[in-house]
Amino acid sequence: MFEAKIYQERRKKLKQAMGTGQLLFLGNEESSRNFKDNWYPFRQDSTFLYYFGIDKPGMIGLIDCDEDKEYLFGNDLKIDEIVWTGPKPTMVELGKKVGIDQNAPLKKLKDLIRQGCHVLPPYRGAHVLKLQKLFNKPIGEVKSMGSTKFIKAVAQQRNIKSPEEIEKMDKAASITAAIHLEVIKAAHPGMKEFELLAVAEKVAREHNAGFSFLPIVTVDGQTLHNHYYGNTIKAGDMVLFDCGAESSDYYAGDMTRTFPVNESFGPRQKELYDIVYKAQMTAIEALKPGIPYLDIHLLAAEKLVEGLKEVGLMRGDPKEAVAQGAHTMFFQCGLGHMMGMDVHDMENLGEEYVGYSEKIKKSKAFGLKSLRLGKELEAGNVVTVEPGIYIIPELIDLFKSEGKFKDFIHYDRLESYRDFGGIRIEDDFLITDNGAKLLGTPLASASEDIEKIRRESTN
Amino acid sequence: MFEAKIYQERRKKLKQAMGTGQLLFLGNEESSRNFKDNWYPFRQDSTFLYYFGIDKPGMIGLIDCDEDKEYLFGNDLKIDEIVWTGPKPTMVELGKKVGIDQNAPLKKLKDLIRQGCHVLPPYRGAHVLKLQKLFNKPIGEVKSMGSTKFIKAVAQQRNIKSPEEIEKMDKAASITAAIHLEVIKAAHPGMKEFELLAVAEKVAREHNAGFSFLPIVTVDGQTLHNHYYGNTIKAGDMVLFDCGAESSDYYAGDMTRTFPVNESFGPRQKELYDIVYKAQMTAIEALKPGIPYLDIHLLAAEKLVEGLKEVGLMRGDPKEAVAQGAHTMFFQCGLGHMMGMDVHDMENLGEEYVGYSEKIKKSKAFGLKSLRLGKELEAGNVVTVEPGIYIIPELIDLFKSEGKFKDFIHYDRLESYRDFGGIRIEDDFLITDNGAKLLGTPLASASEDIEKIRRESTN
Repeated sequence: MFEAKIYQERRKKLKQAMGTGQLLFLGNEESSRNFKDNWYPFRQDSTFLYYFGIDKPGMIGLIDCDEDKEYLFGNDLKIDEIVWTGPKPTMVELGKKVGIDQNAPLKKLKDLIRQGCHVLPPYRGAHVLKLQKLFNKPIGEVKSMGSTKFIKAVAQQRNIKSPEEIEKMDKAASITAAIHLEVIKAAHPGMKEFELLAVAEKVAREHNAGFSFLPIVTVDGQTLHNHYYGNTIKAGDMVLFDCGAESSDYYAGDMTRTFPVNESFGPRQKELYDIVYKAQMTAIEALKPGIPYLDIHLLAAEKLVEGLKEVGLMRGDPKEAVAQGAHTMFFQCGLGHMMGMDVHDMENLGEEYVGYSEKIKKSKAFGLKSLRLGKELEAGNVVTVEPGIYIIPELIDLFKSEGKFKDFIHYDRLESYRDFGGIRIEDDFLITDNGAKLLGTPLASASEDIEKIRRESTN
Repeated sequence: MFEAKIYQERRKKLKQAMGTGQLLFLGNEESSRNFKDNWYPFRQDSTFLYYFGIDKPGMIGLIDCDEDKEYLFGNDLKIDEIVWTGPKPTMVELGKKVGIDQNAPLKKLKDLIRQGCHVLPPYRGAHVLKLQKLFNKPIGEVKSMGSTKFIKAVAQQRNIKSPEEIEKMDKAASITAAIHLEVIKAAHPGMKEFELLAVAEKVAREHNAGFSFLPIVTVDGQTLHNHYYGNTIKAGDMVLFDCGAESSDYYAGDMTRTFPVNESFGPRQKELYDIVYKAQMTAIEALKPGIPYLDIHLLAAEKLVEGLKEVGLMRGDPKEAVAQGAHTMFFQCGLGHMMGMDVHDMENLGEEYVGYSEKIKKSKAFGLKSLRLGKELEAGNVVTVEPGIYIIPELIDLFKSEGKFKDFIHYDRLESYRDFGGIRIEDDFLITDNGAKLLGTPLASASEDIEKIRRESTN
């Protein structure tokens, strides 16, 4: 949590951007798991945190631009509740922490809200139900109630990280790097994937951190969102570990390393790994204000094609291959995304406002439609850079049967890579005035450096 | 997961109990955390798991008693999705695993459902929205759509654990005991509470298990539902650790131990600990079919009062003290609850059906209103037994200012215990034909045995 004046300044800036109207901020409620009162760990809404800072369920914020007033709604605890929760700060005390003196119980909110009040898009069932009750509209209408003007103002403000935020993000990235280092060291043949996850969880928790998303720890790196942890890790396998810490201040890290279970990569593993590494280095070099991230994505894709040509899996002109989408045989997703309090920052506000612009719109083509960030970078953005090579047997069969990209892909040679798996390398960067700065403690990523850690930890 | 015939038999038994009508089983969806596609770990609905066994989001089950048919609704993956998830079993394959051959995509469900279809009470916002869409009723009505007949039939069936379930629960309890043992061993002065939680998470995950509820690991044991982990553990403190594993088959364990950070309890700590221990032993001795759990709760409360008299914190007749509720100064909650796939088994179906009966209704009095289980025990029930002593300063001040229980409580002596904290001891039991059986590997609970573990781990 920051000091009160930070939140006051953020709200002031937002009021200036909006000019008129009421702005509603739904804090999150506890989220039920297998019965109502058995909760998932509480996570406050990030926009609420950004403007109102309070990490407590059952709060709502309201900014009235017309009357220049800011309200915090919530209920104080009754003695019956204190028995279960212990004493907690009152609403007045909470308001004080974030520079708000207008406090009221939740039931007062409805009297203050006017029709036309701006809201952000709901992303939990509980939000939809709450908006339905507050505005008395049909469910279908509630779901699309998000106000474009409000969304744009919030996205513009949150997309540029302030110095105090960058400090928190650097910390989250350092915790993330510490988790990765321990996982790379801990792996050995015969282990289950979930045992590696246990190592990750322990390191995170020892830093009083959680995860910014469900970690991927898998010998099947070709499956992009893999949350299965039951495989046995075998000699010769590569482990793909994609994991980010969420610091106790709710800032995200997000890194990926792919490492051999043996002391070193196999010859094919090393070849493809080095291609991904080169693509990442090229993309990182290109980071700077003014360049569309879409261009960096395409540049990285080209580098991947160049490398894949060298090992005989692709052919033809790399630029042309990328223009036609042939690289999506190996690289089906985006090069990176905005990051902040959300690992995909503000994804719920809509990618068209967070990652794209009036000038650069999102493509619907396979591959590009999974690129969450395309617009021109600005100093203060935090982005991930995460190229990869993924050999997906089902996709080989599909593209082959459709006769796709025959001029660019050596399907015959690709057959012997069917069970290869997947490789991704990912780091986090702050865009600076003239380039970019790695966030967090640097962690080995060149194949030789990864192998060095493996050698030292297995001996 | 069990073999198909187990699920077939369960559904058959339910159909027999219901006789007529349609029965709807909403499987759970992914649950959004800070944006729509950033999920909490998926947890299937327990009733869906009990009858349909499939641990996958986006499924719905339907039993038509009138037509004697059973359906499984869900959607097969498209190639675009397989890129992200890897190949998954088809609906037909999933149905086969649980003995169902009527499979259909989700959109077919609405055509099959008739008005009057029985549903269970929703406990997530997403359930409410799904029922609203399926039955086209106002939100207010949807929230109270639960069918009493359906609830009672499910509760009666799930309350009696079958041999294959008991085996799974025994395993969950053993993992729970293993977690506790490591946490008791790991504690040392200067540690943060979250570092102990890190130990617990690691042991759970190494058993491929999660938690059945958010663990409590605290030096403030008097706060009954304490999810803060930021305190530093100091010499002289007691740590209260309440934690249950949820096995990979989704069965719960739930145990509590309270242990000294020093090698042994302080004199006051030991005195009160031994009182709680005696109350637990007395309650465990009383467990058998036919006895109302309410009576065991009151018996344990009496034992607590007897002990508190001996140390000079209470006075008067113990039976009378409990009848008037004076023990709630120290023991504000219930002695235990049903347990199964849910740690508070089927709490979402309503305590009046799961923990109480026509004959024994829940009291609204402070203390008793938090007792989740009151009815006569039956062989096959699994219950927790968890007496405690909690010194809550706010409650002392309240009761004192109201002049409550003056004849039973030595308020003057109690003052010097204000910062004492809290103690709970909890284990899990299966009710057998003539008594009860501890679930899981036995774990030390007598004060001497706890101290022995502490001594051995600190030396």
